[in-house]
Amino acid sequence: MDKIALIPELVGTPGPGIVIYGDDETPSDDLLRSCGFFVPHYMGPRPNAHLMAQMPNLEVCQLLTAGFDYARPLVPTGVTLCNAQGVHDASTSELAMGMILASLRGIDDAARNMATGTWDHRPHVSLADRRVLVIGTGGVGRAVHDRLLPFEVSVRMMARSARDGIASPEQLPVLLPQCDIVVIAVPLDDSTRGMVDAEFLSRMRDGALLVNVSRGAVADTDAILSEAGRLRFALDVTDPEPLPPDHPLWSAPDVLITPHLGGNTTAFIPRAGQLVAEQVARWQSGATVDFVVN
Amino acid sequence: MDKIALIPELVGTPGPGIVIYGDDETPSDDLLRSCGFFVPHYMGPRPNAHLMAQMPNLEVCQLLTAGFDYARPLVPTGVTLCNAQGVHDASTSELAMGMILASLRGIDDAARNMATGTWDHRPHVSLADRRVLVIGTGGVGRAVHDRLLPFEVSVRMMARSARDGIASPEQLPVLLPQCDIVVIAVPLDDSTRGMVDAEFLSRMRDGALLVNVSRGAVADTDAILSEAGRLRFALDVTDPEPLPPDHPLWSAPDVLITPHLGGNTTAFIPRAGQLVAEQVARWQSGATVDFVVN
Repeated sequence: MDKIALIPELVGTPGPGIVIYGDDETPSDDLLRSCGFFVPHYMGPRPNAHLMAQMPNLEVCQLLTAGFDYARPLVPTGVTLCNAQGVHDASTSELAMGMILASLRGIDDAARNMATGTWDHRPHVSLADRRVLVIGTGGVGRAVHDRLLPFEVSVRMMARSARDGIASPEQLPVLLPQCDIVVIAVPLDDSTRGMVDAEFLSRMRDGALLVNVSRGAVADTDAILSEAGRLRFALDVTDPEPLPPDHPLWSAPDVLITPHLGGNTTAFIPRAGQLVAEQVARWQSGATVDFVVN
Repeated sequence: MDKIALIPELVGTPGPGIVIYGDDETPSDDLLRSCGFFVPHYMGPRPNAHLMAQMPNLEVCQLLTAGFDYARPLVPTGVTLCNAQGVHDASTSELAMGMILASLRGIDDAARNMATGTWDHRPHVSLADRRVLVIGTGGVGRAVHDRLLPFEVSVRMMARSARDGIASPEQLPVLLPQCDIVVIAVPLDDSTRGMVDAEFLSRMRDGALLVNVSRGAVADTDAILSEAGRLRFALDVTDPEPLPPDHPLWSAPDVLITPHLGGNTTAFIPRAGQLVAEQVARWQSGATVDFVVN
């Protein structure tokens, strides 16, 4: 049997050597054995990245997520792991913008006040004139940067290493006290786990807003709980996740939580479908695939 | 006594011929008589545009609001009325963006779900790929347009009359059914009162979002109530306003209400202060003031 690309129907386009599997379906043993290019489910009831253990001919695993921390331990030796770079940039960055604006402008409070018919008009801090630091210069960080620009703000970017116009982590002690808003858009790995800790938060000015749209474990939950109220938080990701119903973060002051909504939108399917089609075409033609993360 | 400019302390800068009055203060009869350039309060406990009736030497009334419907009946014959063009563009347009994103991405629902610790992860419609119509090409409308551009959307603008790239009201029957989001950013006057009526809303597609950041009376509240659920609404302004606690709009389906937060932010004071200083300087030098609306 020829080697085939196995792609969930959510993002698959039929073509030579491409097998589309149902989003609720487990592929047959034959299919698993012949699979050379595997796209695991994005989300839903059946996470299936573990199926890679049954794919002796696997060459490429193409994820549909930007994050890849969860898949790394499941990738067999010698298999190329690719993330969905670019696919979630628009969706995740616009959520970050929405959370910044909801938090600053009191849209979250207004939504809650509707239940009691309370018209609580009061002044708020605008996004205009704020100084924003975006940590992470991958696709999401750059997309947040681009969306911030027309809002009459000043934007700084930070990456692992300094380059033209981009700050490095060594500059954080100077940068953090100057910023009104800090957006976290880094992948979770050993160098970023717990990066937003008590020391990091202690450098932020009173009333500043921390936005996390990357992975919950990039920030220390206890440190967030200690600083909530002095600082503001807008968190699309938490640690643990999902956040248990009785977790104190739900009721911490000046904290806005959304349930990991970053990438799960209508923007996903057309962008993911295009990425998968391009990657499969590269693999089938013998070219090197893009977005390799291992 | 020389004619003077009477300016609330919130936005006033001391200078020759400029009298700053306290934000909770009623100016003396002498001051009112000599006042040639008057800036009424922006908001707060004491609306005082009615003081113009006691200003026989008044030449210019400079509002601190973009809307001027409320002041028109209070302006004595022969007095020039100016609105605060540009002062609220950043603040109001960013609120419109926040309400679009909160409504589409479920940030309002997430804020409400925090009280019960409910992690309700589900897919949403992205702003990316949406078709947006902005009605109104004044400062706020243009600022919304500029902020929308990086979000991977298509944006159309509509004004009273068609011009290069801008649609006219005659095109509404064709445009409305094509749009996912309609943003209302027009001044309230006889031509716009009740513009968003049952017929207007009936042309919008199922699930489309209407955003109003102008004046409540531009939209027909009964028509909104009839269409809520088929359409989505994000309203920073309502009719009546403030909305009474028992009004049915508070609990109508797929309606997000904020309590007229558009212009009342930190962005206001620096921008208003600069506008007032420039307008007073024009008036004092004998030049024509800008932003005349009568």
